[in-house]
Formats: sequence, C-alpha cells, structure tokens
Amino acid sequence: MKSGLNFLVAAKRCEIAELQQLALTSALVNVTGRLIHGLQRERGLSNLLIGSQGGRFAEMRAHQIEECRQIEGELRACFDSLDTASARVGHGARLFSRIAYVLHGLDALDGLREHVASLQWNTRQATDAYVRLVAGLLAVVFEAADSASDPEISRLLVARFNFMQGKEFAGQERAVGSALFASGRADTGEQQRLLHLIESQERCLQVFTEFANPRVVDFWAVSQASTTLAELERMRRVLCTAAQGVPLNAQLSQAWFDCCSQRIDRMKSVEDRLALDLLRACEDKTTAARAELASYQALQATPAQEVDALSFFHDVPANFGVSPPSYGLQLDRPVLELVQEQSRRLQTMSDELDTVRASLNERKVIERAKGLLMAHRQLREEEAHKTMRQMAMNQNRRLIEVAEAVLAMAEVLPERPR
Amino acid sequence: MKSGLNFLVAAKRCEIAELQQLALTSALVNVTGRLIHGLQRERGLSNLLIGSQGGRFAEMRAHQIEECRQIEGELRACFDSLDTASARVGHGARLFSRIAYVLHGLDALDGLREHVASLQWNTRQATDAYVRLVAGLLAVVFEAADSASDPEISRLLVARFNFMQGKEFAGQERAVGSALFASGRADTGEQQRLLHLIESQERCLQVFTEFANPRVVDFWAVSQASTTLAELERMRRVLCTAAQGVPLNAQLSQAWFDCCSQRIDRMKSVEDRLALDLLRACEDKTTAARAELASYQALQATPAQEVDALSFFHDVPANFGVSPPSYGLQLDRPVLELVQEQSRRLQTMSDELDTVRASLNERKVIERAKGLLMAHRQLREEEAHKTMRQMAMNQNRRLIEVAEAVLAMAEVLPERPR
Repeated sequence: MKSGLNFLVAAKRCEIAELQQLALTSALVNVTGRLIHGLQRERGLSNLLIGSQGGRFAEMRAHQIEECRQIEGELRACFDSLDTASARVGHGARLFSRIAYVLHGLDALDGLREHVASLQWNTRQATDAYVRLVAGLLAVVFEAADSASDPEISRLLVARFNFMQGKEFAGQERAVGSALFASGRADTGEQQRLLHLIESQERCLQVFTEFANPRVVDFWAVSQASTTLAELERMRRVLCTAAQGVPLNAQLSQAWFDCCSQRIDRMKSVEDRLALDLLRACEDKTTAARAELASYQALQATPAQEVDALSFFHDVPANFGVSPPSYGLQLDRPVLELVQEQSRRLQTMSDELDTVRASLNERKVIERAKGLLMAHRQLREEEAHKTMRQMAMNQNRRLIEVAEAVLAMAEVLPERPR
Repeated sequence: MKSGLNFLVAAKRCEIAELQQLALTSALVNVTGRLIHGLQRERGLSNLLIGSQGGRFAEMRAHQIEECRQIEGELRACFDSLDTASARVGHGARLFSRIAYVLHGLDALDGLREHVASLQWNTRQATDAYVRLVAGLLAVVFEAADSASDPEISRLLVARFNFMQGKEFAGQERAVGSALFASGRADTGEQQRLLHLIESQERCLQVFTEFANPRVVDFWAVSQASTTLAELERMRRVLCTAAQGVPLNAQLSQAWFDCCSQRIDRMKSVEDRLALDLLRACEDKTTAARAELASYQALQATPAQEVDALSFFHDVPANFGVSPPSYGLQLDRPVLELVQEQSRRLQTMSDELDTVRASLNERKVIERAKGLLMAHRQLREEEAHKTMRQMAMNQNRRLIEVAEAVLAMAEVLPERPR
C-alpha cells in the first residue's frame, strides 16, 4: 500500500517534470523570439520599400528575408522535434493549436513577400499582414507564459511575454512611422495609430518592470538612457504633431528606421537576458527539487520512525500559508512534517501564482472587451482602445474596470449591429 | 515536416487525454465524497456519545466506524491505483501532495476513535479533529476542481466542490448542535459558531446554485422544500436563541441528529447527481473530441487541397472570440479554417474558464485573509469571518473586496503580535 511518503515523492517528480517541460518550451520561445525580431525588421524594410515606390531598400530587405528564412527553418525544426505523439495533459492543446495557426502563417509568408515586392499592397496592408503573423507567434509565447505553476517562474514568463509584446508595439511603431515618413505627408489617422502604439508599448514595459528581476530592469533602464531615446522622442514629436497633409521630410525615413532599430535591437538584448534568467531559474529549481527528491527517497529506504500519528490533529492547519516555508535536507524530521511543509509550500505558491496570473487575466479581459467593441461598434483596434481609455478617464476608473463593465454589457448588446 | 494539421491532431489528442484524466480523478472524488459522508456521520455520533458521557449511541457509532473503515479501504485502493510512477505535468504535484496529507490523517484515525471512546477528548476536540481530516479530503476535491481547462466541466467541478463544502458545514452544524443539545445547556460561543456554520453553508450552496445544471438545482430545491427544513429551522432557533447557561432539552439531541442527518443524506443524493452530470459531460465531450479527431485524421489521409495560403491574412483575427464557434465534421473545409475555429474555440474556452475560476479564486482569497486575521489577531475562524463580514457591512463592500484589502495590509502587519 502506498504511503504518504510515496505520494510526496510522486508530487516532487511531477514538479521536476513540469520544470523540464518549461525549459523545453522556453527554448522554443527563444527561437520564436528571434523569428519575431527578424520579421519585425523585415516589416519595417518592406514599408520603406513600398513607401519609396520600390526605389530604395530592396537590397537590405532581400538580405533580411534571407535571414528570416533561416530562422524560420530553425523554428520549424523546433516544432518538428516537439513530442506530439504522446498526448500531454496541461496546456498542450492550446500550445499545439497556436503552433498550427503559426504554421499556416509561415506558409503564407512567401506570398506576402511577393505582394510587397510587386507593390500590389500598400504599407497599411503589408503592416497588417506582418502584424497578424507576429501576433500568432506571440500567442505561442503567451501560452508558455500561462503554463507554469511555479510563481517565480511565472513572474519571469509574464515579464518576458510583456516585454516581447512591448517590443512588438515598438516594431509596429517603427513600421507605421517608416511608412509615414516615406510617404512624405502627415496623416491624422496614422498619427492616432502611432500614439496608440506608444501607449500600448509603455503599458507592456510597465508590467515587465513589475515582474522581471531588478538586474534586468536596471539593464533596460541603462540601455534606455542614451541619446537614442531623445532622438526618438524628437522624431515622434515631428511625426505626431504635424497637421493633416503637411509635408514630411521623406529623407528622414532612414533616420527614423535606424533610430527605432537601434532601440529595438537593444530590446532584443534585454529579451535575451530575460530568457537566460528564466533558464537559470528553471535549472536552479530543478536542482533544488532533485535534492529534495533524493532526501525523500533516502527516507523511504530507512526504517519508519516511531511517530505519534495523532500529531496530525495537533499542528497548525496546513491551509494558512502565513509563515514562510523552509527548505533543505530534512532526514531527521517526521514525514508528517514534510508533508505539511509541502502542503504549505504548494498553497503559498498557488496563492502567489494567482497574483501573477491576475496580470495575465487583466490583459485578456482588456483584449476581449476591445474585441467586443470592435465587433459591435465596428471600430478599429486603436479606436476601441481610445474609447475605453476615455471611459476610464471620465469615470475615474481603471482600464481593467472599464473592460469588465464592457464585457458585463455584452449580454445586452445586439448580436450584430445594423 | 509537421504541418498545421498535424498540430491540430496533436491538440485534439491532448484535449482527449485531459478529459480521460478528469474522468479518473472524478471517480477518485466519488469515493472521497463517500468517505467524507461516512466521517461526517461518525463525527456526529461521536459527539452524541461524548455529550451523553458514553451512555448512549455506542452501538450506532461502532456500526458507523465499520462502514467508514470499509470505504477507507476503497479510497486507499483508489490512491494505490493512481499512476504515481510517470510524473504528470499539470496539477499532479498538488493533487499528490494533498493525498499524502490525507494518508497521514487516515493513519491517525484509529487513535482519534480511541480518544473518543475513552472520553479523553471533549466534543470540541473531537469535532476539530474530524473537521481537520475532512478538510484534507476536501482539499483533494478542490484540486480536482481546479484542474480542468474546459469551462463547462470546470463549472460542474466548481458546483460539486462548493456543494460538498456546504455539506461539510451542514455536517459541522450537526456535530456542534448535537454536542450542545447533549450537554443540556446553552453556550453563547457555540451558538456563534453555529450561526457561522449556517451562513458559510448558505454561501457555498449559493455558488452551487450558480454553477450546477438547472435540473440538479431543481432537484435540490425539491428535496429542500419538505417539513424537515421547517423542523430544522425550528430547532436551530431553539439552539441559537437560548440565553447563556439556560437548560436545553438533552432528549432533543437525537431528534436534532436525525433531522440534520435526513437533510445531509439528501445532500448526498444531490452530490451523487452532480458526480453523474460530471461523468456524463466528460463522456459527451470525449465522444465529440474523438469524432473531430477522426475527421482531422481523415483529412490527413486525403490529398492536400489547393488553397490560397494568403487567406491567412484576410480572415477575421483568431483572437476575438465574439462569435460562437460551430462544431461537427468538416471534411470539406480548408484546414486553415479548422485551425482558426479551433483557436477561437480555445480562446472562448479560456475566457469562460477565467470567469469560472474567479469563483474559486474568491474563495481562496477569503480563506487566506481569514487565515491572516487568525494568525495576527489570534482570532478563531468564526471570529475572523465575523470581523471581515462586519467590515464589509460597515464599508458597504463585498466580502471579497474586504478580503483583498486585508491581504493588501499583510505587508505592513507585524510578523507576529506580542
């Protein structure tokens, strides 16, 4: 008959298996991040090409496409190496489904490139197409962020996801700005879009700041505090404040692209550090869990100690995780104590996890509310976002509260507007 | 190279694996529920025995213990049959850890029984000991409720967990009331405890009403609407309104026990229906998922259709789950459409799941805040609960908001009070 200790061992094995799974998924996310980075650059160059009526940037773009193709090959190889044969319980269904979506996007990529090269699509169409593909890739990253049950790892995953999402907004900003400069003429609609992208970017980076390790946050702060940022803000001002139809200096498109790219490349270094932090945390936790597993197994091999079974009814209840758990080798303590400690630890972890997850949930709620407004009031994304932000300001409420209110209204909204 | 369709198939296989796992866990929960039911009755009879100074109920109790031993054997066999060798990703670690805790409680059960039989423990001590063991068993049920990623199944799990938790409060009410009647004298502290148990019970049953299938809710309503309830309320009034020290009719202890037991036995029938609903939902969903899997596999076997890969960039984004997904066999549709539909479906499921989980989280937050108050202000559980309820009334806020405020204060509270 299996004892409490047997189940303690089994629980520890599950923890280790999850950490290993996370390390694998994390490696997948690294390649995904590199492809996103490449596609972001390809998007910007494509916009420059279209904006200049095919006159410039063709070579840089061709070079970039080559690089993207190579990373795409790596990512497909990663996907291939995933164990799809043995059905995994957990977030397998969602991850695989996201991958299926991405694969279709990658299949369509060469068609997109042809449409850009032949100038059949305008910058808006090209940008939207790349945005959709990158969104699919980010959804893979999001599923990974949503899968950990260790709160510390979950924090790092949330930080990384938000940073990557923020970087994508920065990439879209580069693309939209490139197109605007290259077109040589200010446009109120596109200016609105730029402002929305800047704001969304800052929101994501704020979450990153809250959840990442302080060292990486500092690293990012230092990367930021350079002349690049001042130059970026100056060009942002030029782009965003010019009145409708006023000429823009088309020659600035290259400067804008380079300035944004420098910042985005730095973001990639931060992203790489985040990936490293995550890998290290997985390794550290795996090592600690293995040591605990070994101590449990040693306990299994020793003759059972005489313990007072009734002590089960005397100790503090295992549910209140108010005192911090202790770790380490525990061969000289009764099994019940180990079990209670493990229960407390898992409870504390679960509580912390709820807090971390809340930030992921906020994002989901806001996105859902935005989607609802877009569908029912036929708004574009930035208009929907602006509407909610305006509501929040008028009602002196947080954006998340407004989003919740919008969703609560969903049931009374008509199925489809006229 | 694996295609989008391959991953769609893999995702569906994961869904099926999870449903099967749930059906297994659900069977485990059924036996757990039966043992809880038996221990609840044993607890009530033990209190009657102690309350009557060992003079009565010895035979009924012995019979009940025999029944509990038998179910305990079944539950241990269930635990033994769990696959602990292959480490499962998912909620394995938490479930196994809960089981380890329960096994220690079961090992201590005979000691508890001896203390009751020899009248070494008073009714309060005996009740608390049984309460702790049942809480451990309910934690197993809770982990199961927290594990599903299908929102419909999750609703049923949440309904079942809350009903079982409500039934446990009803069981504690029976035990406390039995002891009070048997002691022959009113006691303000125990009256307060009874009121807390009645209120907690009603809160759990409210959640059950929100999440269970309407048929079961009706069944429970019909079971409730009997003369038993009126009789129970009458005795509750007698118990809870008598002034401190006033004599109670000790002969009523049997009537109280029978009246409560009749209601609790009916609750067990409702619980059984909930279990059946759950099993049926798992089966239905498995059947549907298998049919979809078969259709995907058939698609894999047919030559690829000529499709416009670029349509990836034209359709509605997969992220906005505003339109309900459709189901069924889909052999004549392009794979991309299936992928998008699956993405939408998983997105909708994930959104719904957040809503269902919110109710579980509320419970966790309230419990945590209560634990904090108990530890820092050295309150008993019902006092902590009463304090928070009073705060909620005074500030015209929901209990969950008060609990969140209490937790937010945690950081500024001293480590331990003097």
